Amino acid sequence: MKKYFGVDVGGTNIKIGVVSEKGKIIEKIKYSTTKDRPDDTTFINHFIEVMGSEIKRYPEIDKIGIGLPGMLSEDRKKILNLPNIPNLGGRKFYKELQNAFSDKKFKLENDANAAALGEYNFGSGKMPETFLFITLGTGVGSGLIFKKKIFNGGKGNALELGHILSEDGKVLESHIGKKGIMRMTLNILQEHPESEINDLKSFRPKDVALAGLEGDIVGIKVFQKVGELLGKALVTTLRLLDINDIYVGGGLSAGLKIVEPELRKVLNQHLPEYYTEDLNIKKASLGNNAGILGAASLCIED
Amino acid sequence: MKKYFGVDVGGTNIKIGVVSEKGKIIEKIKYSTTKDRPDDTTFINHFIEVMGSEIKRYPEIDKIGIGLPGMLSEDRKKILNLPNIPNLGGRKFYKELQNAFSDKKFKLENDANAAALGEYNFGSGKMPETFLFITLGTGVGSGLIFKKKIFNGGKGNALELGHILSEDGKVLESHIGKKGIMRMTLNILQEHPESEINDLKSFRPKDVALAGLEGDIVGIKVFQKVGELLGKALVTTLRLLDINDIYVGGGLSAGLKIVEPELRKVLNQHLPEYYTEDLNIKKASLGNNAGILGAASLCIED
Repeated sequence: MKKYFGVDVGGTNIKIGVVSEKGKIIEKIKYSTTKDRPDDTTFINHFIEVMGSEIKRYPEIDKIGIGLPGMLSEDRKKILNLPNIPNLGGRKFYKELQNAFSDKKFKLENDANAAALGEYNFGSGKMPETFLFITLGTGVGSGLIFKKKIFNGGKGNALELGHILSEDGKVLESHIGKKGIMRMTLNILQEHPESEINDLKSFRPKDVALAGLEGDIVGIKVFQKVGELLGKALVTTLRLLDINDIYVGGGLSAGLKIVEPELRKVLNQHLPEYYTEDLNIKKASLGNNAGILGAASLCIED
Repeated sequence: MKKYFGVDVGGTNIKIGVVSEKGKIIEKIKYSTTKDRPDDTTFINHFIEVMGSEIKRYPEIDKIGIGLPGMLSEDRKKILNLPNIPNLGGRKFYKELQNAFSDKKFKLENDANAAALGEYNFGSGKMPETFLFITLGTGVGSGLIFKKKIFNGGKGNALELGHILSEDGKVLESHIGKKGIMRMTLNILQEHPESEINDLKSFRPKDVALAGLEGDIVGIKVFQKVGELLGKALVTTLRLLDINDIYVGGGLSAGLKIVEPELRKVLNQHLPEYYTEDLNIKKASLGNNAGILGAASLCIED
């Protein structure tokens, strides 16, 4: 069976997966993103080193898909801006990889786009040919699969849903990304000293979602607010893209059961039935492996 | 030279143009949209009658493009919703036309999309292959030409820019469409009794724009606000579609010289340079003929 490397580059880790063409993960290897943070100028050398050691272990794999957390040039050869690895901005990553491994074929893509394509190719159930993919996690990312392919927009970097304007002149991600959710939780906790979240020594946004699913009032309120703000963002997104299927992934999609009713309330309030009556909102199926599987799916030929 | 009919259906008039394949208007004929308003159930019969009489005059024309002010089914055969001709919702307009004129070929499209395609095919200067087209008039419409073709989104009705959320929970069009501009003008006039707009017996939004261009404070303030609100809508639109070229048409594009600096101020405030540094904003070139020329351009084969 044909195998690909699917490489998920994050601010903290480089995850390299060996993935079958059917989307089965054969092996997962994790490296830290840079050896000597915060000096990230070494990233490319470091990446070539770790990639090289995996290539040696799997010499038969000739295609390598890489998901990157930021903007790429339209031809997917140059990194424009990676907020978590700033010094990579402007680097001709594709060429440097090709020089290092001339007999391999590389495909670079924005990580949310890659995850969307991974869901399209490897997601459970029959996937629609066009859908919006949203990832709720540290940040808020999104991608559009349009007629079976990644939609890159006019210049290559469409679907930056996390950066559209939301309340108080701030972008959506600053409200419902990890930091926003922590801030919101601390605020709402003050009104609800009875919340069981107070019993936790420390907590992450996902714990807030899980508490909400168990009936905790603070967890519920926080993720209802996420639903409201995401709903308003989707009113605009649906008006511009006219999409019928939405998949929600990322760690905070754990809260989707609380998010969705509130989100639909906002959509019903601001959109005619045409947009809402058949609208499907589903939890993405690839979970923690979305990054690796998405990157590997870049290697599948049209 | 090959000729097409380009038909622009509005709430008030049906404009039928005889248009050369190069975009020259050979003749323009205007009919009222319905004979017996407000009973608009007669529209299709009336349309077939007036179309028939023009077809008789130009029997050699075999392709007819029609721009309609509302939503169509994805296959462009059924009218879903025309706010100005409500009873047409659900009618199989394409089939009724084809039954009446079986030897002619019809192409139906949303009017803003058609105008965008008209600008692409017949606009002055070299047109980019991907651009956002915005029409500022009675309503606020938009269309996206994406890689030389109309982008219809997932279900056929993308780019409803006038209906995205703007200030005060209202949609953009309710602020900067004709009615919104009239309301805004009357409000701002109260603060500025010296405005020359007060000297007009009556005025339309376009007069406000023209007064602004001549230095009238109320005209300037109104269209600066249009720029601000349109700018915020475009922050989101650019984040989702990543477009580098914007063409603005419609009667109120007369105010673009006042709108654009304010709009760019908002874009620069909320977007990184990537989106703004090479962004072109231009006035569309087809003016009052955009509807007819856009509809005719639907007949051009790929």
